[in-house]
Amino acid sequence: MTGQAEVALIVGGGPGISASCARLFAGAGMGVAVAARNVDKPVLKRLAEEFGVRVFAADAADPESVADLFENVTGALGAPRFVVHNIDGRPREVFRKAITELDPGPVLETLKNSTFSAFLIGQQAARLMLKLPARDGHKGTILFTNASAAFKGYPNSGAFAAASHGKSGLAQSMARELMPQGIHVAHVPIDAAIGWEQPDGTRSHRLAGETRDDNMAHPDRIAELYLQLHRQHRSTWAYEVVLRPWQENW
Amino acid sequence: MTGQAEVALIVGGGPGISASCARLFAGAGMGVAVAARNVDKPVLKRLAEEFGVRVFAADAADPESVADLFENVTGALGAPRFVVHNIDGRPREVFRKAITELDPGPVLETLKNSTFSAFLIGQQAARLMLKLPARDGHKGTILFTNASAAFKGYPNSGAFAAASHGKSGLAQSMARELMPQGIHVAHVPIDAAIGWEQPDGTRSHRLAGETRDDNMAHPDRIAELYLQLHRQHRSTWAYEVVLRPWQENW
Amino acid sequence: MTGQAEVALIVGGGPGISASCARLFAGAGMGVAVAARNVDKPVLKRLAEEFGVRVFAADAADPESVADLFENVTGALGAPRFVVHNIDGRPREVFRKAITELDPGPVLETLKNSTFSAFLIGQQAARLMLKLPARDGHKGTILFTNASAAFKGYPNSGAFAAASHGKSGLAQSMARELMPQGIHVAHVPIDAAIGWEQPDGTRSHRLAGETRDDNMAHPDRIAELYLQLHRQHRSTWAYEVVLRPWQENW
Amino acid sequence: MTGQAEVALIVGGGPGISASCARLFAGAGMGVAVAARNVDKPVLKRLAEEFGVRVFAADAADPESVADLFENVTGALGAPRFVVHNIDGRPREVFRKAITELDPGPVLETLKNSTFSAFLIGQQAARLMLKLPARDGHKGTILFTNASAAFKGYPNSGAFAAASHGKSGLAQSMARELMPQGIHVAHVPIDAAIGWEQPDGTRSHRLAGETRDDNMAHPDRIAELYLQLHRQHRSTWAYEVVLRPWQENW
Repeated sequence: MTGQAEVALIVGGGPGISASCARLFAGAGMGVAVAARNVDKPVLKRLAEEFGVRVFAADAADPESVADLFENVTGALGAPRFVVHNIDGRPREVFRKAITELDPGPVLETLKNSTFSAFLIGQQAARLMLKLPARDGHKGTILFTNASAAFKGYPNSGAFAAASHGKSGLAQSMARELMPQGIHVAHVPIDAAIGWEQPDGTRSHRLAGETRDDNMAHPDRIAELYLQLHRQHRSTWAYEVVLRPWQENW
Repeated sequence: MTGQAEVALIVGGGPGISASCARLFAGAGMGVAVAARNVDKPVLKRLAEEFGVRVFAADAADPESVADLFENVTGALGAPRFVVHNIDGRPREVFRKAITELDPGPVLETLKNSTFSAFLIGQQAARLMLKLPARDGHKGTILFTNASAAFKGYPNSGAFAAASHGKSGLAQSMARELMPQGIHVAHVPIDAAIGWEQPDGTRSHRLAGETRDDNMAHPDRIAELYLQLHRQHRSTWAYEVVLRPWQENW
Repeated sequence: MTGQAEVALIVGGGPGISASCARLFAGAGMGVAVAARNVDKPVLKRLAEEFGVRVFAADAADPESVADLFENVTGALGAPRFVVHNIDGRPREVFRKAITELDPGPVLETLKNSTFSAFLIGQQAARLMLKLPARDGHKGTILFTNASAAFKGYPNSGAFAAASHGKSGLAQSMARELMPQGIHVAHVPIDAAIGWEQPDGTRSHRLAGETRDDNMAHPDRIAELYLQLHRQHRSTWAYEVVLRPWQENW
Repeated sequence: MTGQAEVALIVGGGPGISASCARLFAGAGMGVAVAARNVDKPVLKRLAEEFGVRVFAADAADPESVADLFENVTGALGAPRFVVHNIDGRPREVFRKAITELDPGPVLETLKNSTFSAFLIGQQAARLMLKLPARDGHKGTILFTNASAAFKGYPNSGAFAAASHGKSGLAQSMARELMPQGIHVAHVPIDAAIGWEQPDGTRSHRLAGETRDDNMAHPDRIAELYLQLHRQHRSTWAYEVVLRPWQENW
């Protein structure tokens, strides 16, 4: 009777926050779906085998693919009450490029993958959740992971600054609209690299070649925060949580 | 052996967030101290009798009184690892007054009660905590309750806008300084009225005469958030959490 | 010898800020180019006839069209030292729509017209300006008009909030990068409707059906500010100017 | 008939922005008053002798002294339509001090000199201006100089972060209140050191021992901006202008 458990949909299939969320939410008894462009990653196979997570192929920047995703997830597990948009969206070509050196194609791709996909996911989530019965006034939670670029436009980071600011503006507008209708919209800018233990005992994070030691945010702890946010009572919903590891320089 | 429990100090003795924190932290096994100017309030007597909370008289805007407070709390319970500054600080004379109508005395009092007392409390807390042994890298938590006036200067609210913005600037500076040294500094602007159940079944909140129904933030839930913040691992410390109840207009 | 006058390029061909800038800059002796998608508008014909403004057809959201535009303007008038991105970018379909009602197509169009076109224009401007000889340390000015949605995500305005925040993030990143290289990047959020005198004596503004009287920002005055910004010495460049008319409610 | 010229009052008597404003405003035909705690500074004598500036002794953090100041200026020159609050307010004891090392006295002094004096000056200015006849809808301008600490709480700068944020909150509240009543309130955070030519050909700035070359903001240019702000039409009042010199690292 998986369909009767609370359903969570995590958009983005990386081995960091997304995988930690999938494990934690499944362990908490939820039916968990993960959406990713590439569903052949080993991490997704392990999530499916070990935690019963359902993996869905989807392009979060494509309107039809996103509409299909929500239909498929709902058909398989039930309508999700907890949707996490956890996509960074930067193609490698935009990393640390001066504004004069950027190719327009990857810049537009960044906006589509990050800001536009946040809209598409948020919109479908809102449409479904608004039809759900409220539980203690709460119909569902839409959570957007973001970066410190949501607040600060760093040099040599124009595409990401634009996309992250854009996602922040979208989240704020959606919060004002949807929170009075029973949907908790939360925006979580993480001013940190994300890192976790590797099989060889070292820690790794999403930006290859930049390993640092213990000032990285651990994705398991971020997942715990996300679950706390989902479980908050509507009288004290946190709209925005700014996360920083202890040693971060800001 | 109270002295060996973890010690929390709550500065501000009102029946809302402070009392909820005191009950929750005591229930979690902490040694709890509450500091208030007026220690004769019935709520404080109940906290002492029913929850073993220790109540200390202190003027949080007075340097000597604050220094004495930390000495007394440490002597009675041990050095606090969790300090909550929960003072609004507005005397009634500054409420909804045009800038031209404000008396300078209460304006300065607002700055002293809110911004300056936050400095005094934060400074003494930091001095004590820096000497404590770290537990998993964490020496202590300093938490500042704030209002939406921390971000937005509303009309007819000049004194409070100044004091709340000031408290926000102080918290940010302290976070940058102290988080790398193992002290979690958290800033929690609450964009809501605070309300809770009254003996007669209605809900009440701190601004008399403005009762609203269920769009008030419940202080018990705020206390839960505060405890979660204190228990966060340093790899993902939340610096700032913006709280809004579901129906808040912002 | 138009080519030797200082050259300004205004991107966006509306009858408000763009037309006011074109008239003012031409009157100040600059060679003025205006780029618009539709070059058949009466306002553009009048600018050409009465002020010698050169009008260029361009789609500011298309990389090739933007590259052509800068080549054509430079060929005809010389390299522009003052480039104004003055595009709102919202198609009518996204106005006052709940997040659940928006069509994805116009949402993406908003991001392209506003944020992405700001990148394309800014990038081409930067490439040209960096090669110019500095005058008192100043190689050129890139100015982005924006709206209050750059700071605040209003309800029923998700697409515009995302695009305006995105433009703000881009501008900040470009400022950090380019100001040390002699290019003044300025971001001007205007928290107001724009209005000006009509032939029939009334005032009009860009949002049909919402005529208000004298709390609209006059585009001639905005153009004056823009020229002042271009003429600032680099020791005191204004990065951001937030404009509000006196009666604006914020 | 000095009394019939437009009157400007500059609060703060340093040789940088205040002196530049005094010279520029006097040269533009205004009657100029400068208020300072210490009226014996050579710069003030020169302003009086060479530019006819009237110098008034006042403690801007003292309510009675501020009330007297406005009465005296009005008696001598007429009611000021342009008031500039140009006080940094930091005593030397709070510079680059860890939060644990600050003495409470100088911290409170910083809040009084900066935030509280901004309130006192702004309040008296507003009271006078509201009674003046409007000129094209404009009764007067109140301008607050601020620092980048208005936005960012730097480490080892807690007192200044609190005071600068507080001044920013006050300015925003006053703007919302007073702009609809015809008073232009402007907030100018300057993210720069201020520097100008010395008799020996070098440039100097307010923080002794930190001379840098040409990335300092020149006070003459800041004064020009301030005059432009005062002369803006109310349909496009700039509420906030963020200034940065070209080489500033931010």
